[in-house]
Amino acid sequence: MSLPERAALVVSAHSADFVWRAGGAIALHAEQGFKMKIVCLSYGERGESAKLWRKGAMTIEEVKRVRREEAEQAAQILGGDIEFWDLGDYPMRVDDGVLFRLADLYRALRPAFVLSHSLKDPYNFDHPLATHLAQEARIVAQAHGYRPDAPVIGAPPVYLFEPHQTEQCEWRPDILLDISPVWERKRRAIEAMKGQEHLWDYYTRVALQRGVQAARNSDRKVTYGEGYQRIFPHVTGTLA
Amino acid sequence: MSLPERAALVVSAHSADFVWRAGGAIALHAEQGFKMKIVCLSYGERGESAKLWRKGAMTIEEVKRVRREEAEQAAQILGGDIEFWDLGDYPMRVDDGVLFRLADLYRALRPAFVLSHSLKDPYNFDHPLATHLAQEARIVAQAHGYRPDAPVIGAPPVYLFEPHQTEQCEWRPDILLDISPVWERKRRAIEAMKGQEHLWDYYTRVALQRGVQAARNSDRKVTYGEGYQRIFPHVTGTLA
Amino acid sequence: MSLPERAALVVSAHSADFVWRAGGAIALHAEQGFKMKIVCLSYGERGESAKLWRKGAMTIEEVKRVRREEAEQAAQILGGDIEFWDLGDYPMRVDDGVLFRLADLYRALRPAFVLSHSLKDPYNFDHPLATHLAQEARIVAQAHGYRPDAPVIGAPPVYLFEPHQTEQCEWRPDILLDISPVWERKRRAIEAMKGQEHLWDYYTRVALQRGVQAARNSDRKVTYGEGYQRIFPHVTGTLA
Amino acid sequence: MSLPERAALVVSAHSADFVWRAGGAIALHAEQGFKMKIVCLSYGERGESAKLWRKGAMTIEEVKRVRREEAEQAAQILGGDIEFWDLGDYPMRVDDGVLFRLADLYRALRPAFVLSHSLKDPYNFDHPLATHLAQEARIVAQAHGYRPDAPVIGAPPVYLFEPHQTEQCEWRPDILLDISPVWERKRRAIEAMKGQEHLWDYYTRVALQRGVQAARNSDRKVTYGEGYQRIFPHVTGTLA
Amino acid sequence: MSLPERAALVVSAHSADFVWRAGGAIALHAEQGFKMKIVCLSYGERGESAKLWRKGAMTIEEVKRVRREEAEQAAQILGGDIEFWDLGDYPMRVDDGVLFRLADLYRALRPAFVLSHSLKDPYNFDHPLATHLAQEARIVAQAHGYRPDAPVIGAPPVYLFEPHQTEQCEWRPDILLDISPVWERKRRAIEAMKGQEHLWDYYTRVALQRGVQAARNSDRKVTYGEGYQRIFPHVTGTLA
Amino acid sequence: MSLPERAALVVSAHSADFVWRAGGAIALHAEQGFKMKIVCLSYGERGESAKLWRKGAMTIEEVKRVRREEAEQAAQILGGDIEFWDLGDYPMRVDDGVLFRLADLYRALRPAFVLSHSLKDPYNFDHPLATHLAQEARIVAQAHGYRPDAPVIGAPPVYLFEPHQTEQCEWRPDILLDISPVWERKRRAIEAMKGQEHLWDYYTRVALQRGVQAARNSDRKVTYGEGYQRIFPHVTGTLA
Repeated sequence: MSLPERAALVVSAHSADFVWRAGGAIALHAEQGFKMKIVCLSYGERGESAKLWRKGAMTIEEVKRVRREEAEQAAQILGGDIEFWDLGDYPMRVDDGVLFRLADLYRALRPAFVLSHSLKDPYNFDHPLATHLAQEARIVAQAHGYRPDAPVIGAPPVYLFEPHQTEQCEWRPDILLDISPVWERKRRAIEAMKGQEHLWDYYTRVALQRGVQAARNSDRKVTYGEGYQRIFPHVTGTLA
Repeated sequence: MSLPERAALVVSAHSADFVWRAGGAIALHAEQGFKMKIVCLSYGERGESAKLWRKGAMTIEEVKRVRREEAEQAAQILGGDIEFWDLGDYPMRVDDGVLFRLADLYRALRPAFVLSHSLKDPYNFDHPLATHLAQEARIVAQAHGYRPDAPVIGAPPVYLFEPHQTEQCEWRPDILLDISPVWERKRRAIEAMKGQEHLWDYYTRVALQRGVQAARNSDRKVTYGEGYQRIFPHVTGTLA
Repeated sequence: MSLPERAALVVSAHSADFVWRAGGAIALHAEQGFKMKIVCLSYGERGESAKLWRKGAMTIEEVKRVRREEAEQAAQILGGDIEFWDLGDYPMRVDDGVLFRLADLYRALRPAFVLSHSLKDPYNFDHPLATHLAQEARIVAQAHGYRPDAPVIGAPPVYLFEPHQTEQCEWRPDILLDISPVWERKRRAIEAMKGQEHLWDYYTRVALQRGVQAARNSDRKVTYGEGYQRIFPHVTGTLA
Repeated sequence: MSLPERAALVVSAHSADFVWRAGGAIALHAEQGFKMKIVCLSYGERGESAKLWRKGAMTIEEVKRVRREEAEQAAQILGGDIEFWDLGDYPMRVDDGVLFRLADLYRALRPAFVLSHSLKDPYNFDHPLATHLAQEARIVAQAHGYRPDAPVIGAPPVYLFEPHQTEQCEWRPDILLDISPVWERKRRAIEAMKGQEHLWDYYTRVALQRGVQAARNSDRKVTYGEGYQRIFPHVTGTLA
Repeated sequence: MSLPERAALVVSAHSADFVWRAGGAIALHAEQGFKMKIVCLSYGERGESAKLWRKGAMTIEEVKRVRREEAEQAAQILGGDIEFWDLGDYPMRVDDGVLFRLADLYRALRPAFVLSHSLKDPYNFDHPLATHLAQEARIVAQAHGYRPDAPVIGAPPVYLFEPHQTEQCEWRPDILLDISPVWERKRRAIEAMKGQEHLWDYYTRVALQRGVQAARNSDRKVTYGEGYQRIFPHVTGTLA
Repeated sequence: MSLPERAALVVSAHSADFVWRAGGAIALHAEQGFKMKIVCLSYGERGESAKLWRKGAMTIEEVKRVRREEAEQAAQILGGDIEFWDLGDYPMRVDDGVLFRLADLYRALRPAFVLSHSLKDPYNFDHPLATHLAQEARIVAQAHGYRPDAPVIGAPPVYLFEPHQTEQCEWRPDILLDISPVWERKRRAIEAMKGQEHLWDYYTRVALQRGVQAARNSDRKVTYGEGYQRIFPHVTGTLA
């Protein structure tokens, strides 16, 4: 008899957000045996594909196809299990059908934790919308009267991954995750996102800075890190 | 050959703060094998001994003696190792001698974590002063040029325990500690503080509320809890 | 000739919120001669009726019926005048028809004050939505061009009652209301909510804590209290 | 060959907001050669036309007509180029058609900067909605995949003008603009808003207070000022 | 037999702060029968007497003398009872002797409420220091072990009066006090401060703005107002 | 006849802070003709010289000597004019003599702007103390009654440079300064700080990240940047 599989859920507004912001966590927990389910709400086809559009003679369908291929490749490198909901971006819009679809996924997956965007982002309104959706679907999935035949979920913690400009987004890292063991895979996944090459080094530097900070805030030797902000208090049996 | 002893440090402004606010953590970690060093900066002889003063015919020395006895008994029940620095209260004042004494204690104890008060408290200025001292001594103990012959400490996390009126103190629990296994000991320690009987039930209710919240924020069954706010980000290798 | 009746408005997301969070204020002002109008936007049938759903063989209509009966009984005990708008919960959704219905109620009732939920609640998105509705309907009812034939309302203060986890909801009590004179009625109303028995003692302890705090922040003798946060500045002719 | 015209965009929820809150900036930059495009999302016909409604025998169309005339006159005095989108007020509602219309205006206008309302306003929910729209349309206009044939815009700074009660709106002036050279025009524009005469002196005093503050925060002689809050960091080559 | 006199305490960093910021409250409560005790910690002789210094041939003693005369006259007009502690300004420094002196004054006066400065002020460090002193002395005066022979005080509310630039000081008015009945006296007191004539109209405009806001936030007719921020929750038996 | 020299003041807690955090601004404005006065309150001899202390056989005087040489070299590279006040570090302590010395320097230098540390830093208490000193001395230097024979200063803006962990320090960049033209000099100054080689790449990455952000928030091409937070509002005659 096999052990029940553990899982986690990543709600990514655009198809590359999960790579820059949570690629380390995905690879790390995939190695720890977690099923890492990544939901890309959109391909980022309008707002985060400048390089493709600049080529000219491009259609929205072609941009989506390329973005999807890159994201699938990145997810594969990270060990994640990706799906694309193709909701559109800039602006993203979410109706209750999407909400219930995500609530049902919570029920089916029963994630041990959830990753999504910062609560605010003046540069990008799709990001906080994705988080709002991730939070509201979690609440619905906890309700006994929603699809009463399916068991409710517990209270998986929600971690907010790092936005592009942290201070302007009022995002503060409560957690520094040591991703050194999987850095090489994260970097390969980053490089799979060929359309956003201008971000490769930016997010490599982010990882290095968070690594330095992680070492400074602990007695661990850390080279690469990812920062996360918690929404809910952490329940524990020890402070050590 | 014995294992190196693990330790933690509790910096308490007055002699009973460690009981109401951190008694569960002290008992819990003492049971886990930690040396729980409690520093009472004062006895709370002026500001937190109303019942004794109301008896009349009381001297400051007599109040201190009673408070000390009660606190020693409470510490013993919790398994903590208490010392009294007798700095005076209402107002507490701290000079650099005290700062260095505490820095030296950090160096000697090498605590795995530190507990102290909230950063603000409009009802009690001794509380944030104690935390400021605990933080500054930690910084000094990290400096290579301070007493260069003694090894510096690393970066022990600092947890802020719960003040009397959380919202007015801008204190927010990031952590809910399950103290159910040691609750009975915490309650006995509380009852050792005979001079503040009006707080016994107040802090029992605090523990019950935090327990309900801990259960609600996790899949654990928790009856009694204590809340803590982190100062520094938590460095970890897993989000699960 | 009778004096004009004074009134107040309570906007409650689910059918029991008004009991836990504002039952004391309702009973107190009902005794002071206020018409206490309670609008339950939903029965909390999906998200706050776990005990009923756990019985099995339950339908949404049956849950609503039971919740309605309990809430009616609680309102009667408190002296409130309740109505149910049956908008659904988890998630609650509000359209402009609902907004205008509430604006019209403001116009008809002319409340001296308004009670609703905290501005944020990461555990429950229906709560801040209810407050948003209560605020926006108040603004519409103040507009001379909205149904110009009906007289506009003034500027009734809006008080936010206490959420389940105050610190996570960024809620801070600006006001502590002494509900000792009506506590026995509030407790009976609480016990009318048979489906949420797990909350009876939780909110009894909340009342006791706020009572202790009220006594500590004044020279009054207070045993039971309720906390409220103000949205707008209080206009007064005296600071005493 | 003429120089390319520089432009700025003012997004005003109601037809008079641009006068009280940004009239100085409009006149000042119009004199500096900017095309100052003012978009009035509504006439403020329901919520900000009390004086007209009080006359009795008034229709919504008549109120709009008068408000439009006053606003056109004010814009002319200030040197602004006004258009009215007639979306309705109290409550204002914005759909994606409006969003794209504004995004297209960004693309056509290519504003050097954007002015809109504070992020919060508990007295007026149309105001933050206007700002949200102004921000989201800016983001859409930056997206290469939105109408890919039209060139994207850069990153024009967004300035939030002063709300009626700054502290309650959590608005803080990062910038004090010296409007002394154009004050006389701003006052005339204010006086063109005949329906809101009760605000003439209020906003004259606001200008005087901001003027005193501007003088106090610099070595300039300033009599009249306007305050603005920045959303994004200011990029510069000098701190002097 | 006479009724016990009610009293209030105003802690003013410099000799004119009580006039601009709390003159209305002083006059109003003096008329209501309160003994309004004003403690001027300094004359503001260095930092707030520019006009005198600009005359030339001035000594610090002469500046103090003039400032004292003006402040005494203003206090008399307002009906306040003033004393000068001559602690010096720019920078003000406070030792424990001053703290105990103020604590003793609390014990003797038993104020029903306390007025002092905002908690922060980047333009003036004496202001928050005065508030810190006012708060700490209040705490000491509440301690049973401080001068145990004198009865402790209760918990008088502390109100923070309005600083010069509210938003930069993170000050928010929770209370708008209607000072219309005493405005004429406040204006006369303002005019007694001959050395700071540049502030006369500034604070007249402040009073008018707060008056407009007070009217807007209530159903009262208010012309002149003063804003106050509360430190502690208000304990009450009614929300109406 | 020569033009009056323009100047700016940098208040640095430890001898290398000005390099990492403000080296670009120093070099840039030195090239623009500013006299860039750097005050190093301490050498950072205890807390920021780990590498030297690890060598063994080190004395505090030797550490200071080395740190001074490095800092002098860095200042020379940047074009700054450095002085050392040798106040000690970890903990730094400042008395009124130091305050007046700095106030006198303000009077003599008449800086166009001032650079110092973030307002909070839980990792380093010397940093906010340096800023507090820089602010208070500025206030004293503005007071007409302080050394009345020397002319008062105006209101130079205060910019807070970037701390090591921005989010934990509640620091937010309002300004991104393009330091690309002087980057090569800043890097050389960084490399002059031989005792802190572990920070060379960290602060190079900081400059690159701020450069990317500066480009993204403007239409400028920026490679290297420095972030600054303003304390006071910026007074200006244009928003463009």
